[in-house]
Amino acid sequence: MNEKYCIIMAGGIGSRFWPLSKNNYPKQFLDVLGTGKSFIRSTFERFNPVVPAENFLVVTNAAYRDLVLEHIPELKPNQVLCEPMRRNTAPCIAYATWRIKSRCNKASVVVTPADHLVTNEVEFQKVISTGFDFVEQPEHANALMTIGIRPSRPETGYGYIEVDPAKQPKHEHEVVEMASFKEKPDLERAKQFVAAGNFYWNSGIFIWSLEGITNAFHNSLPDMEQLFESGAHLFGTDKEQAFINEKFAQCENISIDYGVMERSDCRYTIPADFGWSDIGTWGSLYTHAAHDNYGNALRGKVVTADLKNSVVNIEPGVEAIVQGLDHCLVAYRDNSFLVCRLDDEQRIKEWVAELEK
Amino acid sequence: MNEKYCIIMAGGIGSRFWPLSKNNYPKQFLDVLGTGKSFIRSTFERFNPVVPAENFLVVTNAAYRDLVLEHIPELKPNQVLCEPMRRNTAPCIAYATWRIKSRCNKASVVVTPADHLVTNEVEFQKVISTGFDFVEQPEHANALMTIGIRPSRPETGYGYIEVDPAKQPKHEHEVVEMASFKEKPDLERAKQFVAAGNFYWNSGIFIWSLEGITNAFHNSLPDMEQLFESGAHLFGTDKEQAFINEKFAQCENISIDYGVMERSDCRYTIPADFGWSDIGTWGSLYTHAAHDNYGNALRGKVVTADLKNSVVNIEPGVEAIVQGLDHCLVAYRDNSFLVCRLDDEQRIKEWVAELEK
Repeated sequence: MNEKYCIIMAGGIGSRFWPLSKNNYPKQFLDVLGTGKSFIRSTFERFNPVVPAENFLVVTNAAYRDLVLEHIPELKPNQVLCEPMRRNTAPCIAYATWRIKSRCNKASVVVTPADHLVTNEVEFQKVISTGFDFVEQPEHANALMTIGIRPSRPETGYGYIEVDPAKQPKHEHEVVEMASFKEKPDLERAKQFVAAGNFYWNSGIFIWSLEGITNAFHNSLPDMEQLFESGAHLFGTDKEQAFINEKFAQCENISIDYGVMERSDCRYTIPADFGWSDIGTWGSLYTHAAHDNYGNALRGKVVTADLKNSVVNIEPGVEAIVQGLDHCLVAYRDNSFLVCRLDDEQRIKEWVAELEK
Repeated sequence: MNEKYCIIMAGGIGSRFWPLSKNNYPKQFLDVLGTGKSFIRSTFERFNPVVPAENFLVVTNAAYRDLVLEHIPELKPNQVLCEPMRRNTAPCIAYATWRIKSRCNKASVVVTPADHLVTNEVEFQKVISTGFDFVEQPEHANALMTIGIRPSRPETGYGYIEVDPAKQPKHEHEVVEMASFKEKPDLERAKQFVAAGNFYWNSGIFIWSLEGITNAFHNSLPDMEQLFESGAHLFGTDKEQAFINEKFAQCENISIDYGVMERSDCRYTIPADFGWSDIGTWGSLYTHAAHDNYGNALRGKVVTADLKNSVVNIEPGVEAIVQGLDHCLVAYRDNSFLVCRLDDEQRIKEWVAELEK
């Protein structure tokens, strides 16, 4: 049985959750749902029954290093890999992969975003274990696996994974070949995907063997492979960070989906159903949060009146009165606040840019 | 010519302006209109051309003593009279009156709230001087004068002063006899008042001679007169505050309007028109503030979108995005914020009470 590793990608800033998430405190460190745990903490706890704590690697920006160790005190400092700048998911995963390679030759690896929601952790662990079992079989050494979520609605905010209708799974937890990735669709196409039944949400969770992902970098991103290979003897030593700081900027800014998965002919999916959301928008948070009798999702010390179908999220120490709104978002954190219509939340980035002018 | 005194009543907490005004920072110390000056500072500057700085007395709660001296550094500490508790305007005015009596026998006195707006200060000073001239005439020694504001609209938020139609003023700045006070009317009555032409808004500004107000307390509130008379030898000494702290609670909790004016048969009014508002509500602030192209009155660092006819008031150091509202109020100060419909602002007290439960 291979050693099992978990790479948590935690470099994002989740700017869509302004003002809760900002550069100095990104989404993965927030507890926007009020579970008592941040997203990154929940992510660690979700994988820890399957992967031992010492085999986690969190890739993040240097600025967030201390926050990561604060949220996951089980980690040793050298388990937090610091990117000097954001370079998308392929370089992030390559860095962590070569770190693992400095410690062992044979491993199974799961890669996950740090800031997603999973509500059924038992089912989740079954799915991840199924994936590990699959990639540990010698004939699947080169398999690159994704977790595909059975869609519950024609969501336009997610990418989709297509499976050949003839190769659809016949029983639970069955691993199937993956046909193609589909970009975020418009509503019409999303409805077609859901109706067709052979499309799954792309969860951004990957499972592969160390050998498999190494071969994939070799075949699909040889420049990146060579860059990390040139420093292979430095990984796990006190020269690693200097090497990364010097070389990381040379990596192509490309996602693992485009850089590796799209170019592979050995792709698999486990269709799964463990209550997943990327909580990428206030609207998705609204969907997953508990509601009062008027359909409001409330966090913090707030008195409401004539308020319906709205999200109110107030940091501790602040008190609020919110009245007379319907389908709105009211959020306060760190000397910034936002009042807007939930339907217009995609414009938050634009307003924040104007505020920062 | 009598010495001239100005009593500024600054004990209120202006709770209707929550969260800008709170117990620890009431409305009179705010600059809600963005003039660069607090209400109490503007009040001082408005009277100072008519009354020398050393003849101002500010009556306030002990908790606001330092704030008063900060906003009006021209005052000596002993010009700030500290009430141990709120006891309405009659005891407040009695206290200041007996303090003046400890310094002189003959004076003309103007009494004013600390937190009103006047836009035409030149006209204002003419009206006040006219009032002083009137009460300094020996035959008017017992005159109790009010300033009546010519109503520009059927306002239901103000009390009214009625003048006998036969005794209406024939020229500007003419002092006329006052017939009666009218409580805040409903809209129908307010319309009748404005149409009739012999009703004026009660500005809460009074002018009288020291002799006149002393006689009025003697006739109308003899218990209160006796209480202050019993300490007359202590006023202006270092025993004054102890006396006030001990005795003030025994004063009847009654307004000068009910306690003195209603019981007097020697009442006068100067109908005036100097751009006055008590800025008693967010709505009146909205009326008097500058507006952007969409009818919004904005204060602070705020980015707006799809915002109309609204008030946004954000304290320095905080930034806000406000979008998608019409005729709303968004205010933030001191870790508290409020979002509500302007039409419902009279419920702010109720919500604040709920928040403080």
